[in-house]
Amino acid sequence: MNVHPVLINGVWNVSTGAQSFHAVNPQTRAALARRFPVSPWEEIERAVQAAARAAELTRDWPGARFARFLERYATRIEGRAAELVAAAHEETALPAEGRLAKAELPRTVNQLRQAAAAALDGSWANPVIDTAANIRSMLAPIGPVCVFGPNNFPFAFNSIAGGDFAAAVAAGNPVIAKGHSSHPETTRLFAVEADAAARETELPPGFVQLLYRTDHADGERLVAHRLIGATGYTGAREAGLRLKAAADHAGKPIYLELSSINPVFVLPGALAERSAALADEFAASCLMGAGQFCTNPGLVVVPAGAAAEAFFELVRNRFESAPVAALLGEGVLRNLERGVESLRAAGAEAATGAAAAAGSGYCYRNTLLRVSGERFLAVPAALQAEAFGNCSLFVFARDSAQMRQIAQALEGNLTGAIYSATTGGDDAAYAEIAPELRQHVGRLLNDKMPTGVAVSPAMNHGGPFPATGHPGFTAVGIPAAQRRFAMLQCYDSVRPHRLPPALQNQNPTGTMWRQIDGRWTQGHAG
Amino acid sequence: MNVHPVLINGVWNVSTGAQSFHAVNPQTRAALARRFPVSPWEEIERAVQAAARAAELTRDWPGARFARFLERYATRIEGRAAELVAAAHEETALPAEGRLAKAELPRTVNQLRQAAAAALDGSWANPVIDTAANIRSMLAPIGPVCVFGPNNFPFAFNSIAGGDFAAAVAAGNPVIAKGHSSHPETTRLFAVEADAAARETELPPGFVQLLYRTDHADGERLVAHRLIGATGYTGAREAGLRLKAAADHAGKPIYLELSSINPVFVLPGALAERSAALADEFAASCLMGAGQFCTNPGLVVVPAGAAAEAFFELVRNRFESAPVAALLGEGVLRNLERGVESLRAAGAEAATGAAAAAGSGYCYRNTLLRVSGERFLAVPAALQAEAFGNCSLFVFARDSAQMRQIAQALEGNLTGAIYSATTGGDDAAYAEIAPELRQHVGRLLNDKMPTGVAVSPAMNHGGPFPATGHPGFTAVGIPAAQRRFAMLQCYDSVRPHRLPPALQNQNPTGTMWRQIDGRWTQGHAG
Repeated sequence: MNVHPVLINGVWNVSTGAQSFHAVNPQTRAALARRFPVSPWEEIERAVQAAARAAELTRDWPGARFARFLERYATRIEGRAAELVAAAHEETALPAEGRLAKAELPRTVNQLRQAAAAALDGSWANPVIDTAANIRSMLAPIGPVCVFGPNNFPFAFNSIAGGDFAAAVAAGNPVIAKGHSSHPETTRLFAVEADAAARETELPPGFVQLLYRTDHADGERLVAHRLIGATGYTGAREAGLRLKAAADHAGKPIYLELSSINPVFVLPGALAERSAALADEFAASCLMGAGQFCTNPGLVVVPAGAAAEAFFELVRNRFESAPVAALLGEGVLRNLERGVESLRAAGAEAATGAAAAAGSGYCYRNTLLRVSGERFLAVPAALQAEAFGNCSLFVFARDSAQMRQIAQALEGNLTGAIYSATTGGDDAAYAEIAPELRQHVGRLLNDKMPTGVAVSPAMNHGGPFPATGHPGFTAVGIPAAQRRFAMLQCYDSVRPHRLPPALQNQNPTGTMWRQIDGRWTQGHAG
Repeated sequence: MNVHPVLINGVWNVSTGAQSFHAVNPQTRAALARRFPVSPWEEIERAVQAAARAAELTRDWPGARFARFLERYATRIEGRAAELVAAAHEETALPAEGRLAKAELPRTVNQLRQAAAAALDGSWANPVIDTAANIRSMLAPIGPVCVFGPNNFPFAFNSIAGGDFAAAVAAGNPVIAKGHSSHPETTRLFAVEADAAARETELPPGFVQLLYRTDHADGERLVAHRLIGATGYTGAREAGLRLKAAADHAGKPIYLELSSINPVFVLPGALAERSAALADEFAASCLMGAGQFCTNPGLVVVPAGAAAEAFFELVRNRFESAPVAALLGEGVLRNLERGVESLRAAGAEAATGAAAAAGSGYCYRNTLLRVSGERFLAVPAALQAEAFGNCSLFVFARDSAQMRQIAQALEGNLTGAIYSATTGGDDAAYAEIAPELRQHVGRLLNDKMPTGVAVSPAMNHGGPFPATGHPGFTAVGIPAAQRRFAMLQCYDSVRPHRLPPALQNQNPTGTMWRQIDGRWTQGHAG
């Protein structure tokens, strides 16, 4: 049996592990032929040692060197786009053209190029200079970063090509990628290109490494390793919390993106004004990619009454007439089934769906549930458990005061949206609800569904626990996302020629933004 | 028996707890008469509820309101300086004039005023505006902050007057202060003034609250409370790690400053050039405040040989002739005794001290230990355990290569210093050692002892675990210290009149620094 090798210390090694696994085509439930290894601890340890050696060699490098790698890698990915799309489509069932080729691949390449530009520019490191005290500080690489990628974005959040990878590298850190088991061939293709780009741009071996899979205990050991700087994890809550406990205990930063139901509040004036358009917009957002988005709108709060009932009917019709896409895998289907069952057990009624769909793939009918505001407030924890997939729960609230209570009862979420009348007629209700919602979400939207996550310096793809592990950081947005993978380094009365270029009096690039004596400037100090 | 009341929800309440405690005069070991309560859980819960209500009321307030409070409070502290100094001197034995009145009180008041200026200015919140995408984000209050103060800075790190308090309030958060049990009367005096200043400047009740003591289990419950935003803790490692585990499990940010031995490397050229001056400088830094500084130089690495032996003798003479000051309390004395014993058990030899000192107070002889580089590298963990107090360990390293290995073997520390020849003769050794030391410390110093911690925007009073819990944050330095107590809030397509002033197109103050479309500016957007 042919098992693909792992990428450790710049070499594609046959794994020393005895176990292997294969991916499954979600549209046919057929096992895919290629086999990939489960790495044993000694193999993981070798990767960590190689990453630490790479970090030693590169930690003082100028950002331009990491930028060159990221640029070259982006170009290589474009050159292999057709194969990547084919592999990812086979492994995830996500639409090849509209989603993978036309949206996610360009986004991924764009992220890498934005990260390259930020690495080159250097302003991400926030250099601060106090000339009177001769104290200077900046962010610097934190050390080898482990990236655990999720199942739902085989490109844009891939452990060896996605947002965390780009951010960690742009901050100057080697990456040990732990691929998601559902799309190993996609990940392998990326790793081949990353490795080639690393050679072409003369990064040391061990800067970019790939493990396909580890057992849980070894994953916990990895994130807590003395030589690891930090970890980025995107995925299921339970596995993420196990890694968090291990990393926290060892005092190692870990950034998690765990789960989120992304509440949407629709106020009466918006319903009166544009119900049909809202129903279109909501159904498109909720069913896109079979609902498998971190920012999928899984909870909709509406004002009980005839208008909301009519709106709900419009959405139900759209859910029933929309095609059903295959889910990413059997585990996603099982979790969605369990999730819907437990929402129903907590008092939600199914208006449509709530059962497996016909066909050969891992399909679940588009599902719409409903519950009263009273019931939601009686068991808020049970009714905001995430049912990841093409499913949403409508809450019919008595009035804006109850909407406010619902906002107060929310756990931490990535996003929260409020739709209101364009005329201003809902402004009083908005003022009642928004301040509560604001505290429980990382990104507040107006009249917009949460599923688009622009790669903007102002973006926050983050939020209070349990959406993430820390409400001060974002996983999307350059340069903010880079700052997760950095340590603060201060130089107190250090002789000028020993300072890193970013902290010397002369601006090293002529364009780097630095805070000098309380003012942001692209100029020189002193 | 008269037990002092606690400050909860704007009222000085008699504690409902049955237990109480008293402080001890460290110079006489005599119990002080005043008694202070141990707060039971229901009392703590009331404080949390009151803080949450205060947070709801104040979270959208302009920074000017918090600035007014901080300014007023600073002025009130100055008005009560004599009483504060007398109380702190009695409770801590720190020198009344030179330390408390002339150094620590002015520093405390200065910190509060810097925090006030930062709150008023608003730039600390890092507003970022992307006008093309209409996405805007900034840091905002995280919610009620618990502050656990340490024993060694009764003013500058006091739970209700020190750096964490100032930073949390300047970021717009209510504070629940948990005073240190060794100086409750000092803390009470601060709380009286904080409460008065809060009333004068119309902060809501519950914004500033004080508990003197809780049991360990309740402390863990407090930092993990659903309504708590974050915690700042400065103190002993063991207690801090218990709180960290509880907060981490609940997904609540906790910032810890735990322990640090602050290694100092002295290179051959510096020894040859200025041994006597270095001995003066080192002894003054190490014995100041009986060595009870977070940044006390507890480890000195020298190149083995005649010059280092002569230097060691100079230091030993200074340690023997310097007066012995009382330690902060019985616990500090016991820990220092145990710490020195365990360093000796690991192979360190005592050159002087290493025993309790005569007299009525909690005094320990100024203690100097020594060990070879080989031995240090054989048991690095045991030989870098903190012995908090007037004690330091010299490591005699074979050569600069061994100095480098010692730097590599260090745990995370707040600071690391390197002394080298002014002529540049040590530059090769510096280049060998500094990159390793750099990774293990928050602040790297040249030719300077670490005990001075300037309140500068460029300061880093932080470092890798176990010095702190996260290497990206600093506990000293405005505005960086404020950012620990904030969540990132993003506004995506939010209507202009609903945005917080800092994110509207018009610059709300005309001087606030904002990043608009990639450029830092004090101007308007759009």
